[in-house]
Amino acid sequence: MSILVVGSVAYDTVETPFGRAERVLGGSASFFAVAASFFVPVNLVAVVGEDFGEKERAAFRGRNIDTEGLETTAGETFHWAGQYSYDLNARETVFTKLNVFEFFKPRIPERYRQSEHVFLGNIHPALQREVLDQVRQPKLVVCDTMNYWIERTCDELKETLRRVDVLLINDAEARELSGEWNMLRAARRIRAMGPSVLVVKKGEHGVLMFGEHGSFAAPAYPLEEVFDPTGAGDTFAGGFVGYLAAAGGRGEGVLRKAVIMGSTLASFCVEAFSLDRLLRLTRAEIDERFRLFKRLTHFEDI
Amino acid sequence: MSILVVGSVAYDTVETPFGRAERVLGGSASFFAVAASFFVPVNLVAVVGEDFGEKERAAFRGRNIDTEGLETTAGETFHWAGQYSYDLNARETVFTKLNVFEFFKPRIPERYRQSEHVFLGNIHPALQREVLDQVRQPKLVVCDTMNYWIERTCDELKETLRRVDVLLINDAEARELSGEWNMLRAARRIRAMGPSVLVVKKGEHGVLMFGEHGSFAAPAYPLEEVFDPTGAGDTFAGGFVGYLAAAGGRGEGVLRKAVIMGSTLASFCVEAFSLDRLLRLTRAEIDERFRLFKRLTHFEDI
Repeated sequence: MSILVVGSVAYDTVETPFGRAERVLGGSASFFAVAASFFVPVNLVAVVGEDFGEKERAAFRGRNIDTEGLETTAGETFHWAGQYSYDLNARETVFTKLNVFEFFKPRIPERYRQSEHVFLGNIHPALQREVLDQVRQPKLVVCDTMNYWIERTCDELKETLRRVDVLLINDAEARELSGEWNMLRAARRIRAMGPSVLVVKKGEHGVLMFGEHGSFAAPAYPLEEVFDPTGAGDTFAGGFVGYLAAAGGRGEGVLRKAVIMGSTLASFCVEAFSLDRLLRLTRAEIDERFRLFKRLTHFEDI
Repeated sequence: MSILVVGSVAYDTVETPFGRAERVLGGSASFFAVAASFFVPVNLVAVVGEDFGEKERAAFRGRNIDTEGLETTAGETFHWAGQYSYDLNARETVFTKLNVFEFFKPRIPERYRQSEHVFLGNIHPALQREVLDQVRQPKLVVCDTMNYWIERTCDELKETLRRVDVLLINDAEARELSGEWNMLRAARRIRAMGPSVLVVKKGEHGVLMFGEHGSFAAPAYPLEEVFDPTGAGDTFAGGFVGYLAAAGGRGEGVLRKAVIMGSTLASFCVEAFSLDRLLRLTRAEIDERFRLFKRLTHFEDI
């Protein structure tokens, strides 16, 4: 019941209204792997440069994370720098140095190939398919993407989506991919492309899930201190897929709890820079906040 | 267990991407009264001009709405015209002709004065207090306001808020009134001004409620056809206060169900122009959609 994750491991330089973090651990696969490793073993596939430090590698150690697939090649590690607006609702990219990530060709180590759950991070859709070609009969394929691929490689993306069970994107991406403004219509169109389940992330406004059994709506956990939203979406994905893998099913009830678990993990992620909060998080804290989510949303039937 | 509502009864001219409605029934008190009348008797106080037609008056007839307080004076009825953006998320006022509403001095008929529940629609905060002065010991005072009064009559508004139990405003207004961006902090500041409960309406993103027992978050009901959002906030208020009045309590469980009932009524309101959908709505349809809300948000504890 392990998860294979393919994505980026990177350096982030982030400026928020509350401070600045220089060249700290980031990347979609980093956030995903640490979040998912609270639930099941994670097999990590990503690439870093020779500058990738011992301190950053240590983040993956002592956890349920196999790093055989974390390749080190000549050159520098992917480095993203961004700056958030005063309300954290908008961000501007200061620079994107793809470095070794530009030539990333995911190679799946032999012992990862029987992973039952696959998370395809936000990379070129053709590479996402190459990953799937190297895996034996995964039970569940979950996929992320972004506007860049929707705009530039839409046909490739649609070919990938035919092999995907769950697509995890944000509301703007769902509208762009479907060509529909209304979210119910957007979901119907996207689900017709392949994924039986669509999860739409709306940041501070929560999450919507659309599947065979209709819609599920979950709010974001209200926090008094949101420090840095970087990685929240990938952390959501880690909690979501991690919970599903541990539960071993994909019925409606399990999917809904997975959404709440993803939202729970994401709510911790934004409390500090980089993976700082996730790295000192305990399972007891996770379960306690899940229960607070229940209290936040519960009402009796009439 | 009746409700006194004081607000506007108006003509609206509305243009949405889906059509145009010319000089149709609108106004905060109209939407509120019709929504609340599904639950308890409503005592309506508002002013209209001599042009206010039989067809519009008929909307209040055959319902639990007392119109003794609907005054007719020389002049024309308040007329608002607005235009919505393609996504219905922004609207522009084309014109606002206050007409007789400009000189509105709410006079509460004798038999309204023992109303146990009072809804102070969006009027000058000094007038809102004059209404309260004319009512004998209401059990629950619920208040609406808008950015116009927050910016121009903030001290007056704060004086009113000291006598209010529940304040119902949108997220931008909560931020402006409190001077805090973060909604948890905004809520703490506003509750310190008087209202023990703050309900924050976020349109398509649902509702947050803050009270003694912490926070409650409810999504908006996802609709495939949102036709005209005009009046949704006032309709929410009508469902919210109506349910509270009928339940006869204000414990946490009742307040939460009232939020869902408000959201339920609002979700019908936006399905057609003016009060058209509300006027052909049945209690059975309301209860059915409330149950769909439960299905939309329910998840099991871990």
